[in-house]
Amino acid sequence: MRRAYFDNGATTALDPAVLERMMPYLAAEYGNPGSMHYLGDAAAAGVRTARKEVADTLGCLPSEIVFTSGGTESDNLAVIGAMVASGKRRAVTCAVEHSAVLESFAELRRRGFETTVLGVDGEGRVSAGDLEAAMGPDVGLVSIMTANNEIGTVMDIRGLAEVAHSHGALFHTDAVQAYTKAALGKDDQGFDLLSLSAHKIHGPKGVGALFVRSGTPMAPTMFGGGQENGLRSSTENVPGIVGLGAAAATGHAAMGRVVPKIGKMRKRIIEGIREIPGSTMNGPADGICNIVNFSFEGVSGKDLVIALSNEGIAASAAAACSAGSSDPSHVVMAISGDVRRAMGALRVSLSKFTTDADVDFLLETLPETVARMRKR
Amino acid sequence: MRRAYFDNGATTALDPAVLERMMPYLAAEYGNPGSMHYLGDAAAAGVRTARKEVADTLGCLPSEIVFTSGGTESDNLAVIGAMVASGKRRAVTCAVEHSAVLESFAELRRRGFETTVLGVDGEGRVSAGDLEAAMGPDVGLVSIMTANNEIGTVMDIRGLAEVAHSHGALFHTDAVQAYTKAALGKDDQGFDLLSLSAHKIHGPKGVGALFVRSGTPMAPTMFGGGQENGLRSSTENVPGIVGLGAAAATGHAAMGRVVPKIGKMRKRIIEGIREIPGSTMNGPADGICNIVNFSFEGVSGKDLVIALSNEGIAASAAAACSAGSSDPSHVVMAISGDVRRAMGALRVSLSKFTTDADVDFLLETLPETVARMRKR
Repeated sequence: MRRAYFDNGATTALDPAVLERMMPYLAAEYGNPGSMHYLGDAAAAGVRTARKEVADTLGCLPSEIVFTSGGTESDNLAVIGAMVASGKRRAVTCAVEHSAVLESFAELRRRGFETTVLGVDGEGRVSAGDLEAAMGPDVGLVSIMTANNEIGTVMDIRGLAEVAHSHGALFHTDAVQAYTKAALGKDDQGFDLLSLSAHKIHGPKGVGALFVRSGTPMAPTMFGGGQENGLRSSTENVPGIVGLGAAAATGHAAMGRVVPKIGKMRKRIIEGIREIPGSTMNGPADGICNIVNFSFEGVSGKDLVIALSNEGIAASAAAACSAGSSDPSHVVMAISGDVRRAMGALRVSLSKFTTDADVDFLLETLPETVARMRKR
Repeated sequence: MRRAYFDNGATTALDPAVLERMMPYLAAEYGNPGSMHYLGDAAAAGVRTARKEVADTLGCLPSEIVFTSGGTESDNLAVIGAMVASGKRRAVTCAVEHSAVLESFAELRRRGFETTVLGVDGEGRVSAGDLEAAMGPDVGLVSIMTANNEIGTVMDIRGLAEVAHSHGALFHTDAVQAYTKAALGKDDQGFDLLSLSAHKIHGPKGVGALFVRSGTPMAPTMFGGGQENGLRSSTENVPGIVGLGAAAATGHAAMGRVVPKIGKMRKRIIEGIREIPGSTMNGPADGICNIVNFSFEGVSGKDLVIALSNEGIAASAAAACSAGSSDPSHVVMAISGDVRRAMGALRVSLSKFTTDADVDFLLETLPETVARMRKR
């Protein structure tokens, strides 16, 4: 059966070259990096190399990288850890963030903090003016994602970080979807905290990282043996961390070649889907290279995903991360206020392993599938 | 160079058979279990099988298993999640717990809860009488480990859980060190919450589980997409979870054969080390099968570990989990009140891969190494 994977926003295939880097740590090099013997030393060396590899992609110091169990934990640590340590009362975010940020904000409210959730424009952007109006001396943290995981909107991180800093607040960005697809430099973008995840960049599941700018006051969200500079206790996931390092280095090095290649396919997909009658694009034309999102009049996104799966095409309705949820996409709601459009959203997401033949297959299959569903 | 690994309390070698079970999920089966397509379904099936495998080892339902990033996160979720949801003010633990429990208690205090930390006897045991005396209607949770990770003391979990329950409190046990080495049945031991970790039982690093008895009120400690029944948001670490399931099933099935085999080697090691002049055993003779702990007069445990490593033997001083810490062992302090003994502790920990030749090598090398260090 012919198959094409267009759900890279949910997770990506592990790069065989990354797995190869991990294999020694899944075999003979099984030591605990905290152990003071030859096997511990070898494991610690693997972690050290990976920390340098990730740091190099952000132009930061290895000591500014905290390894976590994934994007969700990175977002939790950034939002909760920064606010607990800040001594301030209020945090600011926006309506189209990933649930890992939005639910961290809900936890802040349960713990007695105040929160402000900014709206976005019709393409999913937060304006610097809106952020400026929401700021005040009580704000400890602003958290705005780099690129939206459902509709691909790229935010003006540098401009938003400047607004946050001008009011004495820290700036966090969830870059899980943008990492290795958009330029992210510690100095250029000015973020204080940045979340990333391995399994969105052809690395293994179960590992991520948080960049924490040197000198940023932070409280941990996981408590124990004091690993990761006291910010993230737990025996290090050595093979996972090594895999993240390899995926980060590979992905960063290939950006100049891969991003235009994927971007060209994205453009073809957008042009193809626009020809389907009753289709509405969600998100901007100049979004991140790997994400396309459309709603189709009279068609449920969830049903469309299942129908496409039966044809051999893997795609998603809203974020796959929301564990089988059938709620309307909160992102499409935020940009449109239209429940039917939010229930009808289909996300098609690409990666470096996507081929032109995959795109052909999608563009052959999707119009027929949408038409068939409308006839029912 | 001849080598022998006696640091299985810190981490164990990944079983090649476990890795084999993981490999498909590190390759073609890379889907996100939350995705509603063929690749998501395959990943979800892998997680489902692993959940059943872990549940079967505890005699519980698959729905009572929450997958986490490891023992530390399981302990954090148990202690903090249960107390936040309990509506009660106080939690009780003991002085020899792993730092993942003790530091979760420190976090409880920072959040305004009260805590009671019980002392232990000279072999590391908490008495039911002491627990009874500490209880009151304000106690929401009692957390006592099944087997101590440094000195191997096995606690009377059933008796302690009964005391907790008779006062309307929940009972949690950190079974990270005891899992697959001691019988742990949901019905027999009566715990409400139980933490376990994969990398201590020849599974992969970066994954663990928390047993949560059906109907136990719990608050999450990680916030996002709502995976793991809302208790542990984050894309599931599918290969890690599959590896945990395989390691749990294998370890549980082999207990009847492996535990006596390791226990015999432990006895030989204890007898051998006792002959070294100035040695003092830390912990009871009837401890868990895989842990031996001794202090040597006039010798620093940390220096001894490094000296043994140079001879090819991997062992540990106190817990390796404490990331290179050179503090005296809090466990040996709790049983002896003797700083020099606590600074001198050497832990030798075994696994199913330990051989009689390894034990020979240890018993040849250790007396000479101790003698040489004393001469310096």
